[in-house]
Amino acid sequence: MKKAIVLFSGGLDSTTLLYYVKNKGYNPVCLIFDYGQRHKKEIIQAKKIAELTNSEYYVIKFKLNWSGSSLIDLKRKVPFHKISEIGKNRSLPSTYVHGRNTIFLSFAVSLAEAKNIKDIFIGANEVDFSGYPDCRKEYFSAWGKLLSSLGLKNKINIIAPFLKMSKKEIICLGMKLKVPYNLTWSCYVGGSKPCGKCDSCILRRKGFRDAGFHDPLS
Amino acid sequence: MKKAIVLFSGGLDSTTLLYYVKNKGYNPVCLIFDYGQRHKKEIIQAKKIAELTNSEYYVIKFKLNWSGSSLIDLKRKVPFHKISEIGKNRSLPSTYVHGRNTIFLSFAVSLAEAKNIKDIFIGANEVDFSGYPDCRKEYFSAWGKLLSSLGLKNKINIIAPFLKMSKKEIICLGMKLKVPYNLTWSCYVGGSKPCGKCDSCILRRKGFRDAGFHDPLS
Repeated sequence: MKKAIVLFSGGLDSTTLLYYVKNKGYNPVCLIFDYGQRHKKEIIQAKKIAELTNSEYYVIKFKLNWSGSSLIDLKRKVPFHKISEIGKNRSLPSTYVHGRNTIFLSFAVSLAEAKNIKDIFIGANEVDFSGYPDCRKEYFSAWGKLLSSLGLKNKINIIAPFLKMSKKEIICLGMKLKVPYNLTWSCYVGGSKPCGKCDSCILRRKGFRDAGFHDPLS
Repeated sequence: MKKAIVLFSGGLDSTTLLYYVKNKGYNPVCLIFDYGQRHKKEIIQAKKIAELTNSEYYVIKFKLNWSGSSLIDLKRKVPFHKISEIGKNRSLPSTYVHGRNTIFLSFAVSLAEAKNIKDIFIGANEVDFSGYPDCRKEYFSAWGKLLSSLGLKNKINIIAPFLKMSKKEIICLGMKLKVPYNLTWSCYVGGSKPCGKCDSCILRRKGFRDAGFHDPLS
């Protein structure tokens, strides 16, 4: 079976992605990132899901001491927005971690080069999203060009199959693929239960409601 | 004074770069990487030089467990090549660390975004070099496009001023700028003295000889 790298957070999107990639016949290699995020629980859940699915995985640890993002600076508070505000007409939310997807993808590229893996999957989507600049089509297309510029024998592709899908569509796909949503973790705040108020909780709730399914975490 | 990020290894090229950047009137912020390289001495020297030049610096630590590069896998040996072989007509040398510059630059981009710094300097050169694919003009041009695709208010530039310079030219520039080459470290092998045989030692020796200066480390 052909290997594929999956950027894997243990959240709703990337867990659905992991099942999608397996369903496509790949043997997934999960990259899990410990970058000092306040919601450490996502790392624990990511490892559980990787083990449950018999997926090889690596945990990559680093710190971004310069980023004042509220996702890694515990002195700041995670902001709460109305659903109508999320991802629209406002400046970058404080949860944005500077350069995060660029760093994540650069590690994936290193692994792909070293192990001759062609396909890197990322669960980014630009429909129901927080407005981060590194979750948009233009950005992933530019990554393709960067990788071509290396002129490697092993041509590496970055694939974001959920880019244009709504959260509802992702959840409907996941339900078909029997994704264990009870094991996934989305909340940014870092408590033992989802806060229900952060952007991530709100987008998740909207997704389950629109899809007509019950969220096992609610 | 305007800040600039300098990817800084404590080697000959990046130390010359640091002095070049200071000479251009920037206030440098050095990024030093501890990625498990066998020549840990370069990190020690990099910190010394950053302190000597009153430069702000960050040390970023991570591991690339998957890369079998002889620069980080201590079970492998650093290869010795003839000067005529280096960078020419051979496959990637075992010292190539998969995706290294991509990872380094991604951290620099994160810092640039977070601190509103516009310019990132890298000391890569494609004349007297080991043939690494992430040291070529096409690669840095593609990075420019990736950064544009983010559509950030702070337009970030990646600048590689030594790209087309020979080692001789870099050293001649450094001598004018009074670079303390006695503090720099180039050898890959990881001993307390330069081995004199690895690609990095050979290119350094050739550079000093061509420039007509004495290497204080020789």
